[in-house]
Amino acid sequence: MPTVRGQSRRGHARARYELHYWPSIQGRGEFVRLVLEEAGAPYVDVARSKGGMQKMMALLARGAAGVRPFAPPFLKAGKILVFQTANICAFLAARHGLVPKDEASRLYAHALQLTLADLVAEVHDTHHPIAGGLYYEDQKREAKKRAADFLRERLPKFLRYFERALEDNDGAHLIGRKVSYVDLSMFQVVEGLTYAFPRAMARIATKIPRLRALRAAVAARPRIAAYLSSTRREPFNEMGVFRHYPELDARPGQR
Amino acid sequence: MPTVRGQSRRGHARARYELHYWPSIQGRGEFVRLVLEEAGAPYVDVARSKGGMQKMMALLARGAAGVRPFAPPFLKAGKILVFQTANICAFLAARHGLVPKDEASRLYAHALQLTLADLVAEVHDTHHPIAGGLYYEDQKREAKKRAADFLRERLPKFLRYFERALEDNDGAHLIGRKVSYVDLSMFQVVEGLTYAFPRAMARIATKIPRLRALRAAVAARPRIAAYLSSTRREPFNEMGVFRHYPELDARPGQR
Repeated sequence: MPTVRGQSRRGHARARYELHYWPSIQGRGEFVRLVLEEAGAPYVDVARSKGGMQKMMALLARGAAGVRPFAPPFLKAGKILVFQTANICAFLAARHGLVPKDEASRLYAHALQLTLADLVAEVHDTHHPIAGGLYYEDQKREAKKRAADFLRERLPKFLRYFERALEDNDGAHLIGRKVSYVDLSMFQVVEGLTYAFPRAMARIATKIPRLRALRAAVAARPRIAAYLSSTRREPFNEMGVFRHYPELDARPGQR
Repeated sequence: MPTVRGQSRRGHARARYELHYWPSIQGRGEFVRLVLEEAGAPYVDVARSKGGMQKMMALLARGAAGVRPFAPPFLKAGKILVFQTANICAFLAARHGLVPKDEASRLYAHALQLTLADLVAEVHDTHHPIAGGLYYEDQKREAKKRAADFLRERLPKFLRYFERALEDNDGAHLIGRKVSYVDLSMFQVVEGLTYAFPRAMARIATKIPRLRALRAAVAARPRIAAYLSSTRREPFNEMGVFRHYPELDARPGQR
């Protein structure tokens, strides 16, 4: 049962989380999955289970407990329904010790997480600068312009910012002295960027040694490593947020 | 002293907040200002005060208390430095009774706030679909395409969602039974959309009666009304997020 996790570890007494997200892509749901996996929390990836898409669409349409989500991902935790990726991650992290407890740290962690969310939205717009509802092929010309600007201006700005945030802290974690949900999301962003823009990322590599080390350290964590080598981890593909379109990457030989 | 608020009401004993944001525009800082104003909280709008831009840029460069903001707006509250608009608003709201206290309500409020932030980002991209660092004039052709899709697909989706969220609740507030930070932000979004896209908003008006009522109700709140008629409220202009470019609005006579 690839969609159910954590039962053996925590037992049935503990309620399972229900993650609702589009099947077949990592997308924004992946940020939530990484928190659930690192926490060893029992969860069902609803839309990947039999009849699950209908369940997700029904919950999206009618909501629950007075909450109607705007869009997937959303998470059912007992009677609580949470949506918006960063919000879900912060909620889970607080429950599972994946963020420091003090207010200042939580506010900083969430600010970093929201900055990652902004970066992810910009990555999405490199292939969909005109309309999310149109095909990439129908906005390819504009995508090339936007991607070029993204790689020239935005990507270095964001990555240097996060590299420096690591320096400002202990060099190995974005916040606190142990792994947090922000580190897990940072791993996913570096991973996704490397998939989508391998040439651009190779060129910036020497400027972001700590981010590369963080990526390796998160990938090596036992639960994350087990997850990444499982069938639960969808490969990146050209339907998700991080898409590899060579024509959008830095040109070969380009500085 | 238009940049200092709330001293007469709360006195000097209470520390003043320092809001750091670009002067001369409402921008994303406006969502924070509305919370501060409704709370009657003492604050300084740093970059609008003498020498304030330098103070803001210095704090942006070096950070404080281990926190380096990615971009304005950010808020200094004693030793705490908070950034990311939705994060700042949620932080202030919790301190000033502008969000219900229970966890489920706070999570829902924040999810709504982040959905508003997504909408605002899409509004920004109607005039800057290719690059935030380029002039509008240099991406006008693409802006027309993106704005057309925004008005046809995204604006109705977002506004109907929020209209329904009002229906799901008490019809007058997005969450709880009294005003919250989410209502204040919703006001600002409707206000900004009406400035930027008057024709499109006129056409959708009959579909969003509760949102229009919310807008009027927030504008009529004593502290908000006082703020809106003060010099602290910058008018909308074509440097902020909500810009009125008639060529991006729905065409006259268009359905």
